[in-house]
Amino acid sequence: MSMAPESVELREQATRARIVRAAQALFHRYGYQKTTVADIARDLGMSSANVYRFFESKKAINEAVALTLTGEVEAEARRNAAAAGPAAERLRKLLTDMHSMNAERYLRDLKMHEMVAVAITESWPIIRQHLETIHGILAELIREGIARGEFRDCDPVMAAHCVQAAMVRYCHPRLMVECAGMPHPTLDEMVDFLLASLSRPRPRPRPEGRGRA
Amino acid sequence: MSMAPESVELREQATRARIVRAAQALFHRYGYQKTTVADIARDLGMSSANVYRFFESKKAINEAVALTLTGEVEAEARRNAAAAGPAAERLRKLLTDMHSMNAERYLRDLKMHEMVAVAITESWPIIRQHLETIHGILAELIREGIARGEFRDCDPVMAAHCVQAAMVRYCHPRLMVECAGMPHPTLDEMVDFLLASLSRPRPRPRPEGRGRA
Repeated sequence: MSMAPESVELREQATRARIVRAAQALFHRYGYQKTTVADIARDLGMSSANVYRFFESKKAINEAVALTLTGEVEAEARRNAAAAGPAAERLRKLLTDMHSMNAERYLRDLKMHEMVAVAITESWPIIRQHLETIHGILAELIREGIARGEFRDCDPVMAAHCVQAAMVRYCHPRLMVECAGMPHPTLDEMVDFLLASLSRPRPRPRPEGRGRA
Repeated sequence: MSMAPESVELREQATRARIVRAAQALFHRYGYQKTTVADIARDLGMSSANVYRFFESKKAINEAVALTLTGEVEAEARRNAAAAGPAAERLRKLLTDMHSMNAERYLRDLKMHEMVAVAITESWPIIRQHLETIHGILAELIREGIARGEFRDCDPVMAAHCVQAAMVRYCHPRLMVECAGMPHPTLDEMVDFLLASLSRPRPRPRPEGRGRA
């Protein structure tokens, strides 16, 4: 429905992306609170008024940065879920990589931590949407594991909720900091425990026997 | 080693307890930040100097209040762990009651929430000790479940770590608030999932067969 020619739209998209990248770099270097919209504009050699044409507030810029970051985690989770191999292995890799990406961002980099803490407080819908997306990816992977006979017959949607809730300590920025001094359970120990819940009982004497009541 | 007669010691203990009770009531009514040591002293009809004879700071009083609250949760957990019946049922009751006590305190009562948030930030050793005590109670109960043949043969210390970490969403004050809008998993759904991990595989055709490699 837009009247603008395509090239204008593309140029505006590119400008938005440049603002988000510049903001992310400045938040990373100076912290979210200390970075102003004027700083972001200056860094890009544009006026604050021009930045406000694209984002109505610093909060809106932070939300765009948060969307970029959560999008990267979601893309990686999708890649892991779609890989080859047993569902259990893929689930472990997915949870491990998600934890690593978050640890890299929130434990090593306290400035990024501040930005995400602000997003959790002020932009909960974005975080919530991210959690729902990850939940969907987990549920699909568990559904596949059940279909392959690896996992017990359970509700994959519910199982994904439980796995996600159980992993909160490894993904929630503030909890990761609070739990930093607690060595156990390691992520692998926790994944073992969760896979023990998902797995089909082993001691079946005969290889056939599926489909029986 | 104390030179004071027993009656003096007992009187001092009673005064400490009165200060803690008064502080708890005032924190509850006005909030932690808004309550001063002078308020607590006035409420008890004593001088601030006298309160400082027993507690060196408001933080020390808050720690004593936190110890009272965590002690109540621990006592309830011990009662549940020592009850009669299957270990799985006792574990469910223990986790449910722990959640209820925390929900009562931190969700319904935002003033208490503030106090606990301060304790988590400023008095982490007390929270940490509480978590270790609860972990010990859980490990003992799981050990008993294994011995009774209800739970699979696993390391009870590690399993208790996993159960505790998985339950953080139901017990951590700030997370309880953040997750308040997420209906799943309910506590019972989560306990089902954790018990599925702990339980011995069901489909054993013969009742004997324990003790086999």
